[in-house]
Amino acid sequence: MKSVLVVGTGLMGASIGLALKAGGFAGEVIGWDARAEELAEARRRGAIDRALAGREAVLTTDADVVVLATPVLPILDWMERLAPALKAHQLVTDVGSTKAEIAAQAQRLFGRSGRAAFLPGHPMAGKESGGAALAEAALFHNAVWLFTPPAGELKGGERKAAEPESAGAWRETVKSFGARVREMDPKRHDEVCAWVSHLPQMLSTAISALLEDRFAGDAEGMAAVQAIGGRALREITRLGSSPYSMWRDIALTNSEAIAASLWALEQRLAHVRENLRTPELREEFSRANRFRAAPRS
Amino acid sequence: MKSVLVVGTGLMGASIGLALKAGGFAGEVIGWDARAEELAEARRRGAIDRALAGREAVLTTDADVVVLATPVLPILDWMERLAPALKAHQLVTDVGSTKAEIAAQAQRLFGRSGRAAFLPGHPMAGKESGGAALAEAALFHNAVWLFTPPAGELKGGERKAAEPESAGAWRETVKSFGARVREMDPKRHDEVCAWVSHLPQMLSTAISALLEDRFAGDAEGMAAVQAIGGRALREITRLGSSPYSMWRDIALTNSEAIAASLWALEQRLAHVRENLRTPELREEFSRANRFRAAPRS
Repeated sequence: MKSVLVVGTGLMGASIGLALKAGGFAGEVIGWDARAEELAEARRRGAIDRALAGREAVLTTDADVVVLATPVLPILDWMERLAPALKAHQLVTDVGSTKAEIAAQAQRLFGRSGRAAFLPGHPMAGKESGGAALAEAALFHNAVWLFTPPAGELKGGERKAAEPESAGAWRETVKSFGARVREMDPKRHDEVCAWVSHLPQMLSTAISALLEDRFAGDAEGMAAVQAIGGRALREITRLGSSPYSMWRDIALTNSEAIAASLWALEQRLAHVRENLRTPELREEFSRANRFRAAPRS
Repeated sequence: MKSVLVVGTGLMGASIGLALKAGGFAGEVIGWDARAEELAEARRRGAIDRALAGREAVLTTDADVVVLATPVLPILDWMERLAPALKAHQLVTDVGSTKAEIAAQAQRLFGRSGRAAFLPGHPMAGKESGGAALAEAALFHNAVWLFTPPAGELKGGERKAAEPESAGAWRETVKSFGARVREMDPKRHDEVCAWVSHLPQMLSTAISALLEDRFAGDAEGMAAVQAIGGRALREITRLGSSPYSMWRDIALTNSEAIAASLWALEQRLAHVRENLRTPELREEFSRANRFRAAPRS
């Protein structure tokens, strides 16, 4: 692995560049971004050695690994364009937040008849605000980095056999970032992410928007919110800062699972509301206490 | 102020004892708790100098200040019993989580015809787990400590005039804990607390209970939840550890405002769910972004 091209040098892409450097990667890190300022910032921070000019330059890259670090829809676009353009020895991987569509498209477009290989990935790391300026080499330290090769490749030892050497090299690289590598079926990934990542995001957005509507025109009320609101309010609204630009693609590519988790939570909140004065509230607290007390990995 | 009696020596009561000591209070801190082990732990930790034996001893106390640091329903009970028992120079205050019922009862029972005074209070501090063992002198450092004297006493300069010296002394004591003192109307307090404290709690309980029901019997799923769940899941479920014993009384004494905030959130989640694939999701993220970007006090 002599060179890595990062497509999308925002928070994730620039952090990958910095982590490569910090992990002792001796090759070249190349970058491209549709936003000139993100690309310049990544260069300034030393996350990339060289910036590509123009989309055409991405399609003719001879980098050993191409990392797609954009929101999901541009990842799907880049996959369409890169699949016929790259050579068989090259590897494309990604850090997209949903995996079922990406894994299905990877199976359709990559990995056979002399084409490049594709390894779908998802580091469980990030911040509520994006941009190369916030990038950190340590972003992936102790984070789980999931790989979700298409279902057919996951059975027993077959996956390893089906994967090119370059995929193994990328797995090792990710470990050098301090990340913990796990494998997961892409559909299972999207369903579990709906519960533990997408639902918390939509919830935090909804409650922040609700408080904005309720208190923004009420100066005395907002002052009271700010005086009274402590850690609980901060935590529950933190993701309210997240950018729509990234979440739009997640909502579009995992709508069904997110809608199901939202619906389940709506029912659950109604249940709590109807039982504020009954002993069933005790049962609900007990179930919540049990979830929190379960041993964590 | 030569002596303070803390009724309820759990997390809040024992922390008040420790904060008194740390703030240089030279008088005696006396404690009482229905649970012998909490009382013993508070004594062991140096939060109280002396433990009272039996409820009768509380009613005959000559402490200058009695701090009720139990859940709300026992606070209301103690108010009933203490009002006829104490002398006019004594002050009773509390740290209860809801204030409208307590303030109304205070107005009915205290502060006239030779009776002791009552100053309703609520420090915005706590932990998701209780008990004297977790008490800290620094628990109130930089926290807002609200006082909610009955509405009639809040108008202009009259409140100060209506308050005995002992109430002013307790306000100064609370400042010596590092807390920031604010005044608030008790009904306004309960309504705003419903939004920024009680709603986050019920939400965290509901989502934790939901995840328990969804994943507790599914070992592979729970392993995936634990592998994928990061800071967002931790934050959003943290209060799932909170004890029912305390929240029962909050739910009972602020049911209407909590139910209204839960209902509003249910509607809002449904709105997000119905708009996962429409441009309205962008508007919802914008509103949430605005709430988070508003200047904080």
